[in-house]
Amino acid sequence: MFSAATVWDNIDKVRGSAPVVHSITNYVVMNSTANALLSAGASPIMAHAKEELEELIKISGALVLNIGTLSPEWIESMRMGASIAAANYKPVILDPVGAGASMLRTETARSLLEEGGISVVRGNASEIMALAGTGTSTRGVDSCHDSSEAEKSALALARKYRCVVAVSGCTDVVTDGEAVYTVRGGSEYMALVTGMGCIATAICGAHMAISEDSFAAAVSGMGCMAAAGGLAEVASNGPGTFAVQFIDALHKMTENDINRLVEVRVV
Amino acid sequence: MFSAATVWDNIDKVRGSAPVVHSITNYVVMNSTANALLSAGASPIMAHAKEELEELIKISGALVLNIGTLSPEWIESMRMGASIAAANYKPVILDPVGAGASMLRTETARSLLEEGGISVVRGNASEIMALAGTGTSTRGVDSCHDSSEAEKSALALARKYRCVVAVSGCTDVVTDGEAVYTVRGGSEYMALVTGMGCIATAICGAHMAISEDSFAAAVSGMGCMAAAGGLAEVASNGPGTFAVQFIDALHKMTENDINRLVEVRVV
Amino acid sequence: MFSAATVWDNIDKVRGSAPVVHSITNYVVMNSTANALLSAGASPIMAHAKEELEELIKISGALVLNIGTLSPEWIESMRMGASIAAANYKPVILDPVGAGASMLRTETARSLLEEGGISVVRGNASEIMALAGTGTSTRGVDSCHDSSEAEKSALALARKYRCVVAVSGCTDVVTDGEAVYTVRGGSEYMALVTGMGCIATAICGAHMAISEDSFAAAVSGMGCMAAAGGLAEVASNGPGTFAVQFIDALHKMTENDINRLVEVRVV
Repeated sequence: MFSAATVWDNIDKVRGSAPVVHSITNYVVMNSTANALLSAGASPIMAHAKEELEELIKISGALVLNIGTLSPEWIESMRMGASIAAANYKPVILDPVGAGASMLRTETARSLLEEGGISVVRGNASEIMALAGTGTSTRGVDSCHDSSEAEKSALALARKYRCVVAVSGCTDVVTDGEAVYTVRGGSEYMALVTGMGCIATAICGAHMAISEDSFAAAVSGMGCMAAAGGLAEVASNGPGTFAVQFIDALHKMTENDINRLVEVRVV
Repeated sequence: MFSAATVWDNIDKVRGSAPVVHSITNYVVMNSTANALLSAGASPIMAHAKEELEELIKISGALVLNIGTLSPEWIESMRMGASIAAANYKPVILDPVGAGASMLRTETARSLLEEGGISVVRGNASEIMALAGTGTSTRGVDSCHDSSEAEKSALALARKYRCVVAVSGCTDVVTDGEAVYTVRGGSEYMALVTGMGCIATAICGAHMAISEDSFAAAVSGMGCMAAAGGLAEVASNGPGTFAVQFIDALHKMTENDINRLVEVRVV
Repeated sequence: MFSAATVWDNIDKVRGSAPVVHSITNYVVMNSTANALLSAGASPIMAHAKEELEELIKISGALVLNIGTLSPEWIESMRMGASIAAANYKPVILDPVGAGASMLRTETARSLLEEGGISVVRGNASEIMALAGTGTSTRGVDSCHDSSEAEKSALALARKYRCVVAVSGCTDVVTDGEAVYTVRGGSEYMALVTGMGCIATAICGAHMAISEDSFAAAVSGMGCMAAAGGLAEVASNGPGTFAVQFIDALHKMTENDINRLVEVRVV
């Protein structure tokens, strides 16, 4: 059974062990994701050159794949990265940014899942629906659906690829295809800052790097985001100040903040 | 006749309809531009892969082309994007970053204009002068000239390519080759934050997505920038806090702020 | 003899002459580096296309090469950039991000140094050790070593390639292979913000653009960073607010701040 205590335990472990998290990610969020990882206590590496993937993944605790600004060369790097990570027993998390909005994105995400080695998928409801085959369209990458729909798609996707699926939204849903957890907290400003979903994926990656249990790591990563969002909101006057306060919150949050601001429930 | 009311009307429409704005833009400003669009109420897509341009442009309300960090592959994507947008009756705005500073930039911007489909060009005075053939040098991308010189170049360029031209500077100038408007407001800090011009272009793109009238959209987009700059300045202690407050301002500005902080005049 | 006065003199000259600084740098830090340069009074250009390097380097005062997100095409651009800069007597500074973490990075940095034309190398201790051949591993790019170890490696590297070497850390070390200076100041938050080292390199580049003396420029660039860090820390509540305040500090710092917050010593 996961709870707020699971969230705090993993946050604390990330701070204590500073795991290296390797990202092959999109241009839009490289800076904000690296800053979020640093504030959370992790050590980010951003690299995509095939010539160095093996060396860098070997010194990393987890690999983050994010398809937000794809091109054929980067898809090859992601494939190669997933394969190297699998061979070296490193956990991999996939962020299928914009899946459903273009065939390139949907098919790239699916082929990465089919080739194996991905432990966790973190997306929004439209992206997860598109990959699960339970929905057909994405309008940008910021959609918010109700959580029951998200839950069905997450379960379907988790069973199809035997992975953990985390759906962020007003209520986050995390499932391994059997148990389903909801994580509540956060802030409405999160939908108004670019890359908040990508940051969630990276933070889950940091938690995967310090935990054998990818399901727990996905729950605690989403819980960490919820707490940071709640903390940041009270210090913000708009999406600009929120984004800055969010980074501060990742660095400052305490066990008490998690208990106050995050609700983890089994469905 | 455009006025502060035009500015507010379009700001309000963007907030009400959340248009998707697709950008093929430069690496430097992808994050800040996406955040500006989100704060203004639009829904940004950043994508350059030729394999997905058609699908993404079809679900977008406008296309932004920005040549700030060019390479041959991205030029091809921009050409293809402009052509797809034209075929789908989507308005296109071009930001000729650094035109005049290198032949690659000047010629890429010109060839995009010559191939057609671009409704609005938004640049600074040196860039517009370089494209109009009325000036010969750019010193970086931050120059500020007097507005009469900007006006002549803008008129010449607008007539040459039958498009709307918006020149940002101490006083912004916007023309369709016939009427000329000036927009005043903003902040001196805007020249000290990278990508403020690129954000102006993206905001104009959002206004084009919700208006049939590209001339009105360019005026209102520049007016929106002027108001956000004025609002942000009073809450800032330097270019760093200004950039953050600017994003807040895009989200918070009211009709009253537009009336207080922006002056729109026909020349 | 360099001192706090050297730091202030060069800061003041950058503000007075607004040198153009051309960067071929990594995706993660393009935005923050451009903002740091603007706040410090310089004029940034970010461009990597081989077609335009010659024109842009000719109008620049210095060239910054940063290998943080390498790919074969970008390595070629960096080589070409270094060669054009040498032919045009423009100073070049290299940031060997992640040297030691992968062969690609170590070898790219070394081959750039061997091909000549690089006046200053700015890295952290692990990177400098890797290039000097005095260390074997890097854990990410955020390591902090003690300054005596950094000093030995810096001296070895400076002598090997007849360049100035600046090592950032708790105490910065700058040497031309003969004299050794330490620069103290800054903030512990600097290790928690991505690209602070890259910003240091860019600021040193701006100082090189306005000084004939690359050794003085490297000392003053590091001193400028130390002052901005010290100023920003007192206005911050975490790494997010620190990054914003740091940009403000670059713009606002006074001679008195340098004297209060920076200690420059010859070893």
